[in-house]
Amino acid sequence: MTALIAIDWGTSSLRAWRMDAAGGILESRRDGQGILKVENGNFPAAFEKVVGDWTKASPNLPVLMAGMIGSRQGWVEATYATCPATVEMFAGQLAAVPQFPNVRIVPGLSRRAPDEAPDVMRGEETQIFGLGLDNALVILPGTHAKWTSVRDGAIDWFSTFMTGEVYDVLKKHSILGRMMEDVPQAGIPAGFDKGLREALSGASGSLQSLFSTRTRGLFGELSPQDSGGYLSGLLIGCEIREGLAALRKRKVEPKNAVLVGADTLTSLYASALAQAGIVTTIAGEDCSARGLHRIARMAKLI
Amino acid sequence: MTALIAIDWGTSSLRAWRMDAAGGILESRRDGQGILKVENGNFPAAFEKVVGDWTKASPNLPVLMAGMIGSRQGWVEATYATCPATVEMFAGQLAAVPQFPNVRIVPGLSRRAPDEAPDVMRGEETQIFGLGLDNALVILPGTHAKWTSVRDGAIDWFSTFMTGEVYDVLKKHSILGRMMEDVPQAGIPAGFDKGLREALSGASGSLQSLFSTRTRGLFGELSPQDSGGYLSGLLIGCEIREGLAALRKRKVEPKNAVLVGADTLTSLYASALAQAGIVTTIAGEDCSARGLHRIARMAKLI
Repeated sequence: MTALIAIDWGTSSLRAWRMDAAGGILESRRDGQGILKVENGNFPAAFEKVVGDWTKASPNLPVLMAGMIGSRQGWVEATYATCPATVEMFAGQLAAVPQFPNVRIVPGLSRRAPDEAPDVMRGEETQIFGLGLDNALVILPGTHAKWTSVRDGAIDWFSTFMTGEVYDVLKKHSILGRMMEDVPQAGIPAGFDKGLREALSGASGSLQSLFSTRTRGLFGELSPQDSGGYLSGLLIGCEIREGLAALRKRKVEPKNAVLVGADTLTSLYASALAQAGIVTTIAGEDCSARGLHRIARMAKLI
Repeated sequence: MTALIAIDWGTSSLRAWRMDAAGGILESRRDGQGILKVENGNFPAAFEKVVGDWTKASPNLPVLMAGMIGSRQGWVEATYATCPATVEMFAGQLAAVPQFPNVRIVPGLSRRAPDEAPDVMRGEETQIFGLGLDNALVILPGTHAKWTSVRDGAIDWFSTFMTGEVYDVLKKHSILGRMMEDVPQAGIPAGFDKGLREALSGASGSLQSLFSTRTRGLFGELSPQDSGGYLSGLLIGCEIREGLAALRKRKVEPKNAVLVGADTLTSLYASALAQAGIVTTIAGEDCSARGLHRIARMAKLI
């Protein structure tokens, strides 16, 4: 029997799950109505469109949402919990949605330390809690990749790397992209390992290493077909180098990491992290649903 | 009396000088016909348009050009000299231009080391020789900034940072640019010092630090008017940190640097480098002319 409607509502798409009290998934849906695609910011209409049949069937059903839907550009701005943050803290700060008394939004998470720039996430905290791990390094690749540390069940540190977005803008709009010829391919793209090795070697800094995508092309060391994969490996390698350096400052030398995200990207990261000596576990795709269920329980919504 | 026509012909514009035998500048011109703007790659026509009156006045006058005009996308592809490279080496490898027996092009410069990605420049080598320095750290800010080391009169090392281009694409095409409001301002832009300090503090890696442009905005630590300056300071700070790290690997701890380039940018870099403990000298704008004259003399063109 349905006990919870769980929604991970992001910038470019959303996923919704109908769940039972024990956390079992009865039905799931995807929709392209990410928050930036909702017409005129009419979130109630988008909500009805995606899960209206579920809510009509049982009008008192609790609905819990996480992700950018709780940002300033979303439906209702939810607050940020702060590191170190436990499931209890999130459950205690759910945002209410006007006119939808059963609907609540999970806060985002911020990290604020003296003399450091703040950092934020929205949605990833819920995926991490969905893993149910007490101590782990969790890496979530993507447009804005997150490296997060879970200690004693709380998210105690994280850092954001704009790896995916930097790759996209350099490929589409910089001189590096002009040399690239896309070749559809499955698995690790050609050139990826070469770029990764360049970054992990530490021969140059992150900003400094970018130009090698061009110069290797000029000297016949990189074909136009391999250039895109090279840049991808280079940037992911720089992320790994900088991520490990940040952990080292915290006196952490990780041997393992859990990867959360889409198949293609987590496979790439698994391969890259292996070359940096880190063994990875790739989490299943429904962490968000599990995390939302866990927070809903803690908040006594179910 | 005119003894040499010197041209620095780059990607987006060119400068031409009419010089006497002693290196004095008799006349100078700028033109927007950078190599990517020359219609149908008709370089002879563009050349005639820019300096045709000078060459007609004295048809046997030697013409020496440097910059991207010698690249694969230019008029004639000139070779690359390799580090460590002296004025003599450049003078000995000038490229001839078919049908224009008096016109020659200065080679570019490449750095190739075992186990390192190659690096290249075209045009900057001529500016550096125009400084006439035997030992110096020379920094040339720009789309693709160059850090170069001159030792015993030869360019013995250099490295490229895509700082300017990364700034442009992030500002125009990434989420960071969406938060920026341009305010016309003279001098150091607001926010610049804050971004610079963030980068120089070493609190995070270069890739890792980018997102702070967004998060500081979210937490009211950075106004939309200051965001562009912040990102500029951040990226220039990252370049300085990575540049100094690269020099440290070569056992060089610079106290001074010479800056070559456009006014606005060299002023920004002077201010930034001062905060990193480096005293700078800003070179005059005619280094290219002086470098071309020096190479022309060495090649016995004059």
